[in-house]
Amino acid sequence: MSEFAAVDVIRAKRDGAALSDAQIDWVVDAYTRGEVADEQMSALAMAILLRGMTPAEIARWTAAMIASGERLDLSAVTRPTADKHSTGGVGDKITLPLTPLVAACGAAVPQLSGRGLGHTGGTLDKLESIPGWRASISNDEFKRQLQDIGAVICAAGDGLAPADRKLYALRDVTGTVEAIPLIASSIMSKKIAEGTGALVLDVKVGSGAFMKDLETARELARTMVRLGQDSGVNTIALLTDMSTPLGLAVGNALEVTESVEVLAGGGPSDVVELTVALAREMLTAAGIDADPAKVLESGAAMDTWRAMISAQGGDPDAPLPVARENEVLRAATDGIVSSVDAYGIGVAAWRLGAGRARKEDPVSFGAGVLLKVKPGDEVRAGDVLLELRADDPLRIPAARATAAEAVVIGAERPTSTNLVLDRIA
Amino acid sequence: MSEFAAVDVIRAKRDGAALSDAQIDWVVDAYTRGEVADEQMSALAMAILLRGMTPAEIARWTAAMIASGERLDLSAVTRPTADKHSTGGVGDKITLPLTPLVAACGAAVPQLSGRGLGHTGGTLDKLESIPGWRASISNDEFKRQLQDIGAVICAAGDGLAPADRKLYALRDVTGTVEAIPLIASSIMSKKIAEGTGALVLDVKVGSGAFMKDLETARELARTMVRLGQDSGVNTIALLTDMSTPLGLAVGNALEVTESVEVLAGGGPSDVVELTVALAREMLTAAGIDADPAKVLESGAAMDTWRAMISAQGGDPDAPLPVARENEVLRAATDGIVSSVDAYGIGVAAWRLGAGRARKEDPVSFGAGVLLKVKPGDEVRAGDVLLELRADDPLRIPAARATAAEAVVIGAERPTSTNLVLDRIA
Repeated sequence: MSEFAAVDVIRAKRDGAALSDAQIDWVVDAYTRGEVADEQMSALAMAILLRGMTPAEIARWTAAMIASGERLDLSAVTRPTADKHSTGGVGDKITLPLTPLVAACGAAVPQLSGRGLGHTGGTLDKLESIPGWRASISNDEFKRQLQDIGAVICAAGDGLAPADRKLYALRDVTGTVEAIPLIASSIMSKKIAEGTGALVLDVKVGSGAFMKDLETARELARTMVRLGQDSGVNTIALLTDMSTPLGLAVGNALEVTESVEVLAGGGPSDVVELTVALAREMLTAAGIDADPAKVLESGAAMDTWRAMISAQGGDPDAPLPVARENEVLRAATDGIVSSVDAYGIGVAAWRLGAGRARKEDPVSFGAGVLLKVKPGDEVRAGDVLLELRADDPLRIPAARATAAEAVVIGAERPTSTNLVLDRIA
Repeated sequence: MSEFAAVDVIRAKRDGAALSDAQIDWVVDAYTRGEVADEQMSALAMAILLRGMTPAEIARWTAAMIASGERLDLSAVTRPTADKHSTGGVGDKITLPLTPLVAACGAAVPQLSGRGLGHTGGTLDKLESIPGWRASISNDEFKRQLQDIGAVICAAGDGLAPADRKLYALRDVTGTVEAIPLIASSIMSKKIAEGTGALVLDVKVGSGAFMKDLETARELARTMVRLGQDSGVNTIALLTDMSTPLGLAVGNALEVTESVEVLAGGGPSDVVELTVALAREMLTAAGIDADPAKVLESGAAMDTWRAMISAQGGDPDAPLPVARENEVLRAATDGIVSSVDAYGIGVAAWRLGAGRARKEDPVSFGAGVLLKVKPGDEVRAGDVLLELRADDPLRIPAARATAAEAVVIGAERPTSTNLVLDRIA
């Protein structure tokens, strides 16, 4: 007989009660052990989504997920540690230039990342387009690379928050992804277990993001910042715009190329701006006095990038995969680009093969969308707006209409919006 | 690829939308076939519980559950058909005298029943205490007995609304039993599929019932009456009190004995009153002009009972099982019985062995509680209030305190309440 019957816990949340610490500890542990069944946890997740959780419940739920696995001990790393997490966006390759940049400024960046599912790409998928690069490394390799180079981007090991891995897969198929308490505890349990001392959250807002409106994004950011602070992780959040794709490249190898351009001192201005803004926050949170813009200019971040890629078996000089097929989409009329919808471009890139429909699917490294215009650009009829790339020619027709609809041409210049919308500390 | 991804259906309901006919048809069918997983259906059930359903959604959901299996064709039965369903209560043996009584008045009563789970007993468990009686009969036997005797109480075959069977088992373990749309469609899908022409619903209200308050019970009753009427079943509902157990006997064989007393012209007045009231409604709904009180007096209902039991292998004259152990509980003070709590008595009978904790458990036929007092009775210290019966002596201590607490003795006479609280047509 269970200490707490799962049905009693589900009913309590269903009827709007706050769960006790003991109920939360039990249900997370029992679910991880398989004593609470998937169908019970999914009903509970739906009740949490619709009824919410108090800050105390979210903190306890997060602690229970951390307790389901190991905690990394980074005390042997002598540099201050600082990590970043993005809630995911279209063209969001920021982790790639940011990790070596912050490391080059003196921090250690333990960036445990994931793969893409749906219309947003995954950092590991992007890096795997570099010949030889390995996402999986041992805990010892992880700590050594963190100490020696200061920058690691790798797959989270199975030992960190196994309850979260199981719960995330369940939420994905049961319409319960969009629960702020579960999003916050999922992200923060892994970051706290990973052992970072400072954490900057990039909470995306807009059509291409998970959070479509500023108020919901703010609530998520506040919840996560509080969870981090209460666990001794110096945490701040930036709310950043994701109505337009970041940069000009959307797709795995295409984004690596753009990231290397940024590290070389070029690249699109929005990618540079956000990379530097996040680097400043990470350095401040880690107590490091350095100017990331100057370090980027110096070329030191590129050196760290090369060392980081090489340490995981990658060849930073190897040519990246290029898609076999491409097609350009042109403007039908003269005008001014009033918007480039992030969600539409994300879906188009996904259909071209840059993303996967199911966890076990492979991605096409060269596939994706190259933007030739950004909002505010003047165009003439016949100008190239987008370039679609795919390995499988049959994928282009499936993406063409969605991509074309994503670019809206109007008569007036759109009002420009800030990339950073708010800061929550 | 599914016509409708389960996640889209779950999300729509989660976000408060009404599901389309096509979504409902698909999700019920796909769940029955195993294409929609248990964890997806439980998330949907929780969303339905918290978000509700429109009458049109409930009607379509019910139709989809009926379509998941066979529909009985009772057109060969020449008598008018009338059935009754109770939402379940403590001491609710009404089906036992009611079915032969209504049959003796000229109707055919196709009473497909269930087993007990939790603190309320099941009609099949009660009848199985009669030596030789079989709950399972073929569709052909069912129709023949219905035509010849007019009365059948038996287990519902596996062919009726299999979607409901699967969904009910899931709801039981996921805290999603208490959703009015799902309760209503579960009950009505089986009753409509069974082919009855008229249906009387006995919706119980009070501590011993599933519905604790009148307003919720009324909503359930209205929903079910509408579902029945829209499907061509002449349906009415009585809301009846379940704050006090029905009759004086709670437990399988004990309730059979009390039912036979009613058929013999005796028995507790509340059981007689409700049996006659429900019989009148069933006869009126079936278009039969007969006075059930007179038919009960005539002994014709007892003859039908004997024929009904014999037809399913039972010996109506065989002695019923008697529990090996018993203990009486006595009044500690003089006073007036102010209440006998139905839930407390139901739980005590269940602990004594009359009910089962899990579907696969056996029941103890002789176990249960005999009430020696009802609310309003005057008692002296030392008078017997209750008699507990069990086969296993260890079960008596587990039931004693709960049973004793269920009987409250006060100084004043309680205000009497009507047995029938409302009628919904």
